[in-house]
Amino acid sequence: MANIDIYEAMSTQRAVRRLRSDPIPEEVLQRILLAASWAPSGGNAQPWRVIVVKDEVTRAKLGDLYRPQWQQYEAGARKRIEHLSDDALARQERALNAAIHLGEHFGEAPLILVFCFNPGNMAITDAGLDRPTVVGGGSVYPAVQNAMLACRVEGIGCTLTTLLCLCEEEVKTLLDVPANWYTCAFLPIGFPVLGGYGPIHRRPVAKLAYVDTWGNSV
Amino acid sequence: MANIDIYEAMSTQRAVRRLRSDPIPEEVLQRILLAASWAPSGGNAQPWRVIVVKDEVTRAKLGDLYRPQWQQYEAGARKRIEHLSDDALARQERALNAAIHLGEHFGEAPLILVFCFNPGNMAITDAGLDRPTVVGGGSVYPAVQNAMLACRVEGIGCTLTTLLCLCEEEVKTLLDVPANWYTCAFLPIGFPVLGGYGPIHRRPVAKLAYVDTWGNSV
Repeated sequence: MANIDIYEAMSTQRAVRRLRSDPIPEEVLQRILLAASWAPSGGNAQPWRVIVVKDEVTRAKLGDLYRPQWQQYEAGARKRIEHLSDDALARQERALNAAIHLGEHFGEAPLILVFCFNPGNMAITDAGLDRPTVVGGGSVYPAVQNAMLACRVEGIGCTLTTLLCLCEEEVKTLLDVPANWYTCAFLPIGFPVLGGYGPIHRRPVAKLAYVDTWGNSV
Repeated sequence: MANIDIYEAMSTQRAVRRLRSDPIPEEVLQRILLAASWAPSGGNAQPWRVIVVKDEVTRAKLGDLYRPQWQQYEAGARKRIEHLSDDALARQERALNAAIHLGEHFGEAPLILVFCFNPGNMAITDAGLDRPTVVGGGSVYPAVQNAMLACRVEGIGCTLTTLLCLCEEEVKTLLDVPANWYTCAFLPIGFPVLGGYGPIHRRPVAKLAYVDTWGNSV
């Protein structure tokens, strides 16, 4: 485990999509799962479970489900970056190429973490609003982020994808997920092929944060 | 800033609901916001913004909106813990008392972070499913969790609440939030009145994680 502080971990937590097939040591996996378990959730209900897919055949089947979903997404992704200027375009093309690699090799990651949730154990305060609900995610994605930060600290590459929610029924059947539980996050994890973690590109705080009212920059 | 490692931070990240009104140093706030900015999001779109409510009158108005929502929630919360055995009941009652305190004093936290999101900048892959959507949360709650972990490291108490989504229109009007942006997380933050962070109670990994298929314990 690298001896890095929390801000260094967060500031270098980029998506790592080219993964070696080497196995992940069991004690490393346990620390990643423990980190997830520590996350807060509404009413401390922890309305999530994670399936660690190790079996090669099951991973290959997840890969077969992922490939067409990715390919469908890819066309749109390419369109969205067309208008970018040189620097941003080059960066996005690198990310896109890595994502295309993942699209082909999703099932070859040594482990795939599949996070599931039960809306029956959540107080979804935005359920009645005339817009997509997100609040249920407040009780699962902190755990997912903890797992990803633990991967970062352990030097294990990972990226969060939700594309397989598009074929959730097939995934649930494959993994025996009960009817009242659903999928919300998929993390293929493995040692990085290339450099792994490093610099990230994000908006500056001044463009993300306001004081007192909307638009009033910090 | 305490010199603690990431696992220590995560494993002691409990809800801190009794907050001192003392101001939070500006450089500490900046580090918390920066931590949030580093979080991953779908397509790196960062479809969130955060309003740092400092103004005393605006905070008091948020407190006035929060109080009745909390009181309505409190009755149900009390009912849910009635059946618990002694140890668990005592623990939950302590948490409930702290939450009641927050219900009364929400607007007195020196800062309230209000996270907003724009579903138009999200690929919500579970939008078409016959269940509550959560996937949009995958692009905002990692940022919220980063902010909370940063609070933990900085010794600033915080807790995540979504109760104000129940009166989102009033909140949006108060904070000038545009029509196509919505609220998803509220973090009252401040120095702790009591001990602050410390031991947490969570399910063991063995009850949260399965191998290969549902129910197959790690």
